[in-house]
Amino acid sequence: MAGNSQKDKKLVTEITAMDEDFAKWYTDIVKKADLIDYSSVKGCMIIRPYGYAIWENIQKILDAKFKETGVEKVYMPMFIPESLLKKEKDPVEGFAPEVAWVTHGGNEKLAERLCVRPTSETLFCEHYANIIKSYRDLPKVYNQWCSVVRWEKTTRPFLRSREFLWQEGHTMHRTAEEAEARTVQMLNVYADFFEKELGMPVIRGQKTDKEKFAGAEATYTVEALMHDGKALQGGTSHNFGNGFAKAFDIQFLDSDNQLKYAYETSWGVSTRIIGGIIMTHGDDSGLVLPPSVAPIQVVVIPVQQHKEGVIEAASKLADTLKAAGFRVKMDDSEQSPGWKFSEYEMKGVPLRIEIGPRDLAEGKCVIVRRDNREKSFVAINDVTTAVTEGLENLRAALYEKALKNREDRTFSATNLEELVNIANENSGYIRAMWCGDLECEMKLKEVADVTSRCMPFDAEAISDKCVCCGRDAKKLVYWGKAY
Amino acid sequence: MAGNSQKDKKLVTEITAMDEDFAKWYTDIVKKADLIDYSSVKGCMIIRPYGYAIWENIQKILDAKFKETGVEKVYMPMFIPESLLKKEKDPVEGFAPEVAWVTHGGNEKLAERLCVRPTSETLFCEHYANIIKSYRDLPKVYNQWCSVVRWEKTTRPFLRSREFLWQEGHTMHRTAEEAEARTVQMLNVYADFFEKELGMPVIRGQKTDKEKFAGAEATYTVEALMHDGKALQGGTSHNFGNGFAKAFDIQFLDSDNQLKYAYETSWGVSTRIIGGIIMTHGDDSGLVLPPSVAPIQVVVIPVQQHKEGVIEAASKLADTLKAAGFRVKMDDSEQSPGWKFSEYEMKGVPLRIEIGPRDLAEGKCVIVRRDNREKSFVAINDVTTAVTEGLENLRAALYEKALKNREDRTFSATNLEELVNIANENSGYIRAMWCGDLECEMKLKEVADVTSRCMPFDAEAISDKCVCCGRDAKKLVYWGKAY
Repeated sequence: MAGNSQKDKKLVTEITAMDEDFAKWYTDIVKKADLIDYSSVKGCMIIRPYGYAIWENIQKILDAKFKETGVEKVYMPMFIPESLLKKEKDPVEGFAPEVAWVTHGGNEKLAERLCVRPTSETLFCEHYANIIKSYRDLPKVYNQWCSVVRWEKTTRPFLRSREFLWQEGHTMHRTAEEAEARTVQMLNVYADFFEKELGMPVIRGQKTDKEKFAGAEATYTVEALMHDGKALQGGTSHNFGNGFAKAFDIQFLDSDNQLKYAYETSWGVSTRIIGGIIMTHGDDSGLVLPPSVAPIQVVVIPVQQHKEGVIEAASKLADTLKAAGFRVKMDDSEQSPGWKFSEYEMKGVPLRIEIGPRDLAEGKCVIVRRDNREKSFVAINDVTTAVTEGLENLRAALYEKALKNREDRTFSATNLEELVNIANENSGYIRAMWCGDLECEMKLKEVADVTSRCMPFDAEAISDKCVCCGRDAKKLVYWGKAY
Repeated sequence: MAGNSQKDKKLVTEITAMDEDFAKWYTDIVKKADLIDYSSVKGCMIIRPYGYAIWENIQKILDAKFKETGVEKVYMPMFIPESLLKKEKDPVEGFAPEVAWVTHGGNEKLAERLCVRPTSETLFCEHYANIIKSYRDLPKVYNQWCSVVRWEKTTRPFLRSREFLWQEGHTMHRTAEEAEARTVQMLNVYADFFEKELGMPVIRGQKTDKEKFAGAEATYTVEALMHDGKALQGGTSHNFGNGFAKAFDIQFLDSDNQLKYAYETSWGVSTRIIGGIIMTHGDDSGLVLPPSVAPIQVVVIPVQQHKEGVIEAASKLADTLKAAGFRVKMDDSEQSPGWKFSEYEMKGVPLRIEIGPRDLAEGKCVIVRRDNREKSFVAINDVTTAVTEGLENLRAALYEKALKNREDRTFSATNLEELVNIANENSGYIRAMWCGDLECEMKLKEVADVTSRCMPFDAEAISDKCVCCGRDAKKLVYWGKAY
């Protein structure tokens, strides 16, 4: 069971320490854990099998949750004609600087250039205008899983890339109230997913007008705090009112025989979730994956595997766990146990089971948790129960640890000097009251380099004055630096 | 149970009859069965929920089959820099006239233009060159599900569109033999899928040099015959030898300490499968879906649903079938039973169950098969068994009917005059011997408007002379017109 320390160290030194250079630690992990590879397509990433398997698990869980709320799946074209994109002016102004333009098909110049979708509101609206005629056609609750393109200047794997995978839900409703309810419903689906499945505590709240989606009446967000104290927008849900419906003429005949405009929402999460998982749970030995999305939940490693019966016992153990529904790998390759321990720690496998001749003689095995390296000696007959508990305990511990990090990094400020001092000395959230004026929001960016992350729902005021201008405050805002 | 004739007729007349105009019948179905919608993006289609659900079922089945053969999933960028595309000249020449070019990112002109992937051999090769170092890294068996773009002039939903969804597998091997075995293995996965899951008989064989994938040493294909006698290439599997490996410098150190080039394959199927299903099994009432991919396998329709106990009995029946693992819909909407019968016939639902007060009193229900309208009266307690058998019988009947159509439409010719006469008078396959020369292949296109569909594996010669030039024949070829 022992003997892993030397090889461990060798591998571990290949990752930059978190405290030394968090950004480098991050890129080391995405490469060394085989999540991504770079290609000659600048700003785009190759998602490798291990990274893609995480994304597939995310998709599976969210897709089932979407389905429970009546979501149907579709696929829209990846191109948007320039004239269609321009039909609603707010989003165009938001996206124009960062779309990729197709100008030629084959050897011919196109009559009208096409952008590669940065998001598909316009296409969905055009389709909805075709298919929505009566109140009986409502609601329409569609989602698509696809890739989108935004021509970013600076890119980082998962966090900001020119092409990324995501889901975009676009819905149409009969009333403003129904649209609002759907906007909140989907935000809660995201929040529950982050907290219960990924062990990532999030703040639910509303974006300021400056930070909301261009064209939306309201943007709701779930914001997570990373290990280094920077915020990550986990997912957003937008209520568009009937602005797009008016631009695209999406009218339906209501039961009172009146033509009315429909109300729209959209909501999405992307592969940046994977970046969030890494930066919330990872450590100096590599990834730490929440069991719900881990491609391998349990790795079984035979020790002294040349000894009689060891590989057989390890296989049997793995088969038992597979039959119980866990994602399990048994690794009897020729590498040393120590090398394997490091490798699967790097890959963030939640539980490792070691089994050697001595364990075998005693009818036992050793279970090691990835997050805290806690070892338990477990009777082979009890392994299914022990794994069930071990995964659940790990999940709960990940959440608690992330919550503590957030609490330790959440500060409050009631005047500008205080806020600037906190921002200079710490990395995390600063809770402070705001008058609602863009000017104050801009000033905080200028003097403290923070942006508004969100205005939490049902937040209690901590003062009655704006932290910036001292005038009457309207909202409690979480300020911070963000990915 | 009766009363469907009038409404049926009304709906049915909305589809053009197959025999009147097969092309129009096809486009009527894709629209009326809610499979697709058109958008303002010329040549691209919107895949609607019912159509997308068929594609998802196709994906699920194939994905499981792929996994059994060791396939791992990845995601590659959608863009290919022009220089990378040009690294292997054969495919470039094949694809250049039909790729879409991105020339601008935001407001800036790109230093190098990027094409939207028409297929991803080049990206996979570049990645494989990075990650393959030793024979221990082989084989690599990757697949991705994505959308690709080919700038076609003439487009038709599912059959030929500028953007379509597909899967593309790209593999690397240590030896030529292993690559050949993988090429054949994946072709057989496709063939089994078509025949056993979709009820579509296929011819397995090799493409001629003219019809093969540019750059491949050999292209294998499964060819299906549509109801109208035109052929449809269902899926292809390519053996590239080590040509790409040489162009991209994909070398590995073998166990004999020699640097060697790896051997490559690729294979793919696309949403055109859905077009194939429509044109193989559909009829004048609409779609007919094979149970394996039908979004709804059984629709339960209450008759005289206002009568006491009818909706409850229909719901209970639907729940029983859902619990048994079938995809079931119970429709108790306000439309008449006749309207519903037509609607679900249009949508190709394999089995319809009708249940009314009289049935209820007798403890029975009526099961109607979509393909032949055969009715059976079944005790409610036996419904699970009856549905299991009904779906299996329908699947088998679809295959037999399609096979008979192919047999009725397969002809043989031993000289040019005979071939031209058959081609003029019939639509289907013409089996004829070929000398192997491109000139004869071109001449058959010119004089009989047929192309070589495939050279079946292990085919017996039907003559020893080329059907065109009369010189020594090398291969039996299936000639025909294709989608």
